Amino acid sequence: MNFSSRLLQNAVAEFAKLPGIGQKTALRLVLHLLKQEKQDVEKFSSTVSKLRNEIQFCRVCLNISDQPVCEICTSHKRDHGLICVVEDTRDVMAIENTNQYNGVYHVLGGLISPMDGIGPSDLEVDSLVERLASNEVQEVVFALSATMEGDTTLFYLHKRLKNFDITISTIARGIAFGGELEYVDEITLGRSIATRVPYVSSMSK
Amino acid sequence: MNFSSRLLQNAVAEFAKLPGIGQKTALRLVLHLLKQEKQDVEKFSSTVSKLRNEIQFCRVCLNISDQPVCEICTSHKRDHGLICVVEDTRDVMAIENTNQYNGVYHVLGGLISPMDGIGPSDLEVDSLVERLASNEVQEVVFALSATMEGDTTLFYLHKRLKNFDITISTIARGIAFGGELEYVDEITLGRSIATRVPYVSSMSK
Repeated sequence: MNFSSRLLQNAVAEFAKLPGIGQKTALRLVLHLLKQEKQDVEKFSSTVSKLRNEIQFCRVCLNISDQPVCEICTSHKRDHGLICVVEDTRDVMAIENTNQYNGVYHVLGGLISPMDGIGPSDLEVDSLVERLASNEVQEVVFALSATMEGDTTLFYLHKRLKNFDITISTIARGIAFGGELEYVDEITLGRSIATRVPYVSSMSK
Repeated sequence: MNFSSRLLQNAVAEFAKLPGIGQKTALRLVLHLLKQEKQDVEKFSSTVSKLRNEIQFCRVCLNISDQPVCEICTSHKRDHGLICVVEDTRDVMAIENTNQYNGVYHVLGGLISPMDGIGPSDLEVDSLVERLASNEVQEVVFALSATMEGDTTLFYLHKRLKNFDITISTIARGIAFGGELEYVDEITLGRSIATRVPYVSSMSK
């Protein structure tokens, strides 16, 4: 691109480094910012800078937090004997949004992915093992993506944890609620028949 | 969304203000920034802030510039008797990329759009008229989008400029190079037949 200004070019280059944002989108975003009030742009830039400089990771569960220990880990209403192992903070948010989970979390910070050079030592595995050694934990539930990386990580973690006297579970896999059978992929459908569960009427609750 | 950190929430809110970026994309971008080195994020934030505070608009053509008068307007290789009127700096970049234009520009800063409350007084029309009064200009070529707003702006500007002793032209409209006739919309095809031009073989040049 033929920029008329180096300042513009630099800003576009910075935005284009973000994932999923190309040169054209970056230019559109930068031109939008140029049209905003100076104090609004200052707020944008200082919020980003502040985030990176002041953010903390919870000492217990490694989730993003404003305090040394996050709100979930300090809450007395939570079941600290149940740990849900997730890939990153987005998964914590997704599970929290369901309002169906009352335990605590452990954020791995990624999944084992040999293709990307990410091994077990790059993830928060040792801190998970330490937490289990504290005896308070009764169950660990894995909520990892149903991908090759998720399954690899699950397999590895299961091996690391199997000597502990705890229940190990994973979130249920099958067809989604509202999903129509004819559009479900074969593997999911096949597995959901093979791992069929007793019918419990939701009316009878 | 259920944020575990207010810093995170603020940063996501700032990104979600950008056009075409929703909450989920904003979160993805912010988490990406969190994984980067502190100095890289600082560079991102300072580049944005610097852009907004130090950017200038060329005194002559109103294009984005690092100097009071932009490189195109100060260049002696350019034909200052030919002014191309465009909506914004992206159009200048697009035309510059063609390497087919040797005149100078005038950036309107928008198009007349009653629906959005943008009238002629919000655009750089008076500064264009002033430039024409300087006698140096022989031709004004309008390179505006072929939309209702573009046509309205063209109509208005033509009325404002018709008393000047200059040639007024617009960029050619018709089917695009590489375009297949059967996929061209009816209005474009109809107009391009009505406004047919003498055939000039590009081989004979």
